[in-house]
Amino acid sequence: MARSKAIKKQVKHLLGIQNLSVLEAKEILKESQNFIKLNRSGSKKLDVLRGKTQINLFFEPSTRTQSSFDLAGKRLGADVMSMNIVNSAIKKGETLMDTAMTLNAMHPDLIVVRHQDSGAPNLLSQKVNCAVINAGDGTREHPTQALLDALTIINSKGKIEGLRIAICGDIKHSRVARSNIYLMNMLGAEVNVIAPKTLMPDSINQLGVKSFTSMKKGLESCDIVMMLRLQNERMQGSFLPSKREYYEYFGLTPDKLKYASKDALIMHPGPMNRGVEIDTKLADDINVSLVKEQVELGVAVRMACLKLYCK
Amino acid sequence: MARSKAIKKQVKHLLGIQNLSVLEAKEILKESQNFIKLNRSGSKKLDVLRGKTQINLFFEPSTRTQSSFDLAGKRLGADVMSMNIVNSAIKKGETLMDTAMTLNAMHPDLIVVRHQDSGAPNLLSQKVNCAVINAGDGTREHPTQALLDALTIINSKGKIEGLRIAICGDIKHSRVARSNIYLMNMLGAEVNVIAPKTLMPDSINQLGVKSFTSMKKGLESCDIVMMLRLQNERMQGSFLPSKREYYEYFGLTPDKLKYASKDALIMHPGPMNRGVEIDTKLADDINVSLVKEQVELGVAVRMACLKLYCK
Amino acid sequence: MARSKAIKKQVKHLLGIQNLSVLEAKEILKESQNFIKLNRSGSKKLDVLRGKTQINLFFEPSTRTQSSFDLAGKRLGADVMSMNIVNSAIKKGETLMDTAMTLNAMHPDLIVVRHQDSGAPNLLSQKVNCAVINAGDGTREHPTQALLDALTIINSKGKIEGLRIAICGDIKHSRVARSNIYLMNMLGAEVNVIAPKTLMPDSINQLGVKSFTSMKKGLESCDIVMMLRLQNERMQGSFLPSKREYYEYFGLTPDKLKYASKDALIMHPGPMNRGVEIDTKLADDINVSLVKEQVELGVAVRMACLKLYCK
Repeated sequence: MARSKAIKKQVKHLLGIQNLSVLEAKEILKESQNFIKLNRSGSKKLDVLRGKTQINLFFEPSTRTQSSFDLAGKRLGADVMSMNIVNSAIKKGETLMDTAMTLNAMHPDLIVVRHQDSGAPNLLSQKVNCAVINAGDGTREHPTQALLDALTIINSKGKIEGLRIAICGDIKHSRVARSNIYLMNMLGAEVNVIAPKTLMPDSINQLGVKSFTSMKKGLESCDIVMMLRLQNERMQGSFLPSKREYYEYFGLTPDKLKYASKDALIMHPGPMNRGVEIDTKLADDINVSLVKEQVELGVAVRMACLKLYCK
Repeated sequence: MARSKAIKKQVKHLLGIQNLSVLEAKEILKESQNFIKLNRSGSKKLDVLRGKTQINLFFEPSTRTQSSFDLAGKRLGADVMSMNIVNSAIKKGETLMDTAMTLNAMHPDLIVVRHQDSGAPNLLSQKVNCAVINAGDGTREHPTQALLDALTIINSKGKIEGLRIAICGDIKHSRVARSNIYLMNMLGAEVNVIAPKTLMPDSINQLGVKSFTSMKKGLESCDIVMMLRLQNERMQGSFLPSKREYYEYFGLTPDKLKYASKDALIMHPGPMNRGVEIDTKLADDINVSLVKEQVELGVAVRMACLKLYCK
Repeated sequence: MARSKAIKKQVKHLLGIQNLSVLEAKEILKESQNFIKLNRSGSKKLDVLRGKTQINLFFEPSTRTQSSFDLAGKRLGADVMSMNIVNSAIKKGETLMDTAMTLNAMHPDLIVVRHQDSGAPNLLSQKVNCAVINAGDGTREHPTQALLDALTIINSKGKIEGLRIAICGDIKHSRVARSNIYLMNMLGAEVNVIAPKTLMPDSINQLGVKSFTSMKKGLESCDIVMMLRLQNERMQGSFLPSKREYYEYFGLTPDKLKYASKDALIMHPGPMNRGVEIDTKLADDINVSLVKEQVELGVAVRMACLKLYCK
C-alpha cells in the first residue's frame, strides 16, 4: 500500500508500456492477483473507488475492452459513465480536445480512452487533471492488453522470464503487438515476431525481437504463440493476396503448432477471425488455448490499473 | 426462502414458460408481490443483488423491456451493464457464441438476452456458467411478459383459474402469444386465440386453445382481452390486405368489446399501434385498460426473476 | 431544509425560468454552492437520492448536458437510466406520450427531458407523477443552463444585480438566450441582446431587454459577454450570408471585446464554433473566458435541481 501511493504520485497516466518501469509493471500484475479471486467469488463489489468518477471515452467501438473497463470500475464502486463518440463528420483533434476540456471540468478521477489516432491519449493527458488510461490508440499501444497477457502467461506457465514468445500476424498495424513486445522484453522473455513481409515493420529488429516470415522457423521452441487479429480492411489492397492464402501460410493450425514447444499455449486478443488467422477447433481447445483466461484476467488487470492510477 | 434456494438449484435459466413448473411460476408471481410495494414506495433500493453482475444483452432494440430489466437490476443493487448489439453485417450465430464466451469469462451472475432467433437464449445458456433470462427470442417465447400479464390479471381479477382469456392478433409470429398460452393454461384459464387465417399457426389447437377467425365468436364470455402488436413488416406482402381492413375486422373497438363479458379488461404488451389493432380511446380508458398496470408490474416481475434465478 | 420542502410541494417541475420565482431561483443557486465543493473533493458521493430513480430521456443528442445530469444523479446516489431516443421515423407526439406513460408506470422520481419541440416537457409533466426537469426544449427554454450561467457570474463577479450582460448571436432560435433573459432580468441585471436582424425576434423588446444589431453599441459597458452557438443549419438559406461575414460582424474578437467593460468576462454554453462566433484564442484565454467554470458549475446546479425537485 505504501508502494502504491509512491507510484501514484510518480506515474499519473497509463499511456503505454513504453513509459512503464519494471517495478510498476510488476506492481500492477501483483495487485491484479487479488482481483482474480474477487471476480470468481459470489460477491464482486468493493468500495475502493466509491466517490470516484470514471469516464469511458470511446472514439472507436469496442465491445470487449469497454465492457471489461465498465465492469472493473463498477465492481470497485466507482460511478462509471460511458461515452461512445462516433466522429466521422467532425474534425477529430478538435472534438477530442473540446471533449477533454468539457469532461475535465466535471472533475472525473479517471478517463479511460480509446482513439483511432496514435498518441491521442498522450495529448489528452496533457489537458486534464485526472488519470488517463489508454485503452488502445491507433497502431501505437494497448497497455492493459499486454498486462493481461502477461498475467495470463504468469498464471499458466508460472513465470515469463526465460520463455520464448511468438507474436504472429499483422505486426505492422498492431498496437497489441507493440505493447506486448515492450512488456515481454521488459519481463525477461525472448520475443519472435512472424508476419508476411508486407505486414512487418522495417525497423522491427530495433525493438529487440527476432523477425521471421516463416511460421516454421518463427515458432521453433516457443512456449507461447500469440496470434493477432487480421483486420478486414487490410485484406483489400496490396497487403495480402487472399484470406485463404493467408490462412495457408500464417493461420495457426494443429500442424503448424507442432513447430512450437510441446507444451506451447495459444493466445489471441479477440475477437477471432476463425479460419483466417486461427483454426476454429484450436481456438476452442481448452487444453492449449488461453483465450478465455485472457478475457477473465482482463477485468482483474483493469481493476488493478483503475485502483493504482486513480488520483 | 428455503423453497427459493431449492428452485435456484433445479432451474438455472428462465428460457421459457414451457420449461416452468406450476410451482415455479407461482413462486415467481408470489415473490413479485413484494416488489410492487417497494416500487411504489419512496425508497426503491435493496441490497439483494449487491456484488452481483447483470448483463443486458440486446440483439434487438427494445426500449420497454430493456428499461424494465435495467431498473429491476439497479433497484436490487446489482451492477448492471447494458449491451446493444446490432449485428446486421455479422454472422449471427458466431457473434452470439463468441460474445457469450467473452461475457461469461467476465463472471456475470445474470445474462438477460433478447435475440431475433428463436432458441438463441437456450444455446447461450449451454455456453455460460450464469443464469440466462430470456427477454424475448424470435417467435418462440417471452416468459417475463407472460408472467407480468399473469400478475396483472391476478391483481385485477383476484385469480386466473377459471377465467376465459382471449388473445387476438398475429398469433403466428408472436412470442408473447406463445408464452401466454402456456402460462394461462398452466394456471387454469381457458384460452381463445383470434386471428385472420394467414396469421394463425396450423397446429394451434395442439396447444390446448380454441381458435377463432371472428372477433364476435372468439370474444364471447371472455374476462380478459389481450391484444397483440401488429408488426409493420407483416403489413407488406401477402399476410394482410391493409391496415384499415385489419382494423375493421380485428381491431378492438368499443363495439367489439361488447362481445366479451361485461366486466372484461383489456391488455396489450405495447407499444400499441393505435387505430390498427386497438381504438385509441379504448387503449387509454383506465376503466377497462390494464396497459399501465402491465408496465408497472413488469418491473416487479423482473425483480423477482432476477432475484430467484441469480446463482 | 424547511424551505426546500415548501418549494418541493409548490413547484413540482422545473420547466422554465419563466415559471420560477426569485426566491426559488435563489434557493437553487444557494443549494448549488454546496455541491461545488463536493465535486472538487476527493469523494464525490452522497446518499441524498439513494432509492430514487432518475431517467434521462433525450430525444435530441447532447453529450454535454446529458453527461452533466448523469454524473449529477449518480453522485447523489440515484439509480440513473439514460434513454436516447432518435425518432426520425416515428410520429413525435405519439412517441413522447406513449414513452411518458410507459416510463411513468415504472415509478421514476425524476425525468430529465430534452426534446426538439418547444413545450414538450410541459406536456410530459401533465402525464406523469414525478418531477420533470427540462433539459432544453426546442427554441423555448433551457433553465438549468441559465441557472449555471447565473451561478458562474455570481462566483466570478460577486453578484448579478446591477451588472450589464450582453447576449450575442442567434437570439431568435436560442433557448439559452430566452432562459438567460428571464433569469438575469429577474436577478436584477440589465440585458442587451445583439444579433443580425434576421436572427432577432420581432417582439424582443417586450422581454425587457435592449436590442442591438451592432456589437460596438451593444457591448458598451457590459460586464459579461455571452456568446451563443451558431447552429450550422442556420447558415444555409436566407438567415445569414456566410460564416466569414458573420464572424466579421458578430464574431467575438479581442478587438470587439474592447467595446465592453475593461474587466468584462466571456461566456459560451458550448460546444463552440471557433472562428465563427468566437475567436479561438479568446475562447481559451483563462483570464477572460468562463467556459470551463460554466461546465464545472453545471454539474453542481443540476445536483441542486435534482435534489430540490425530487418528489
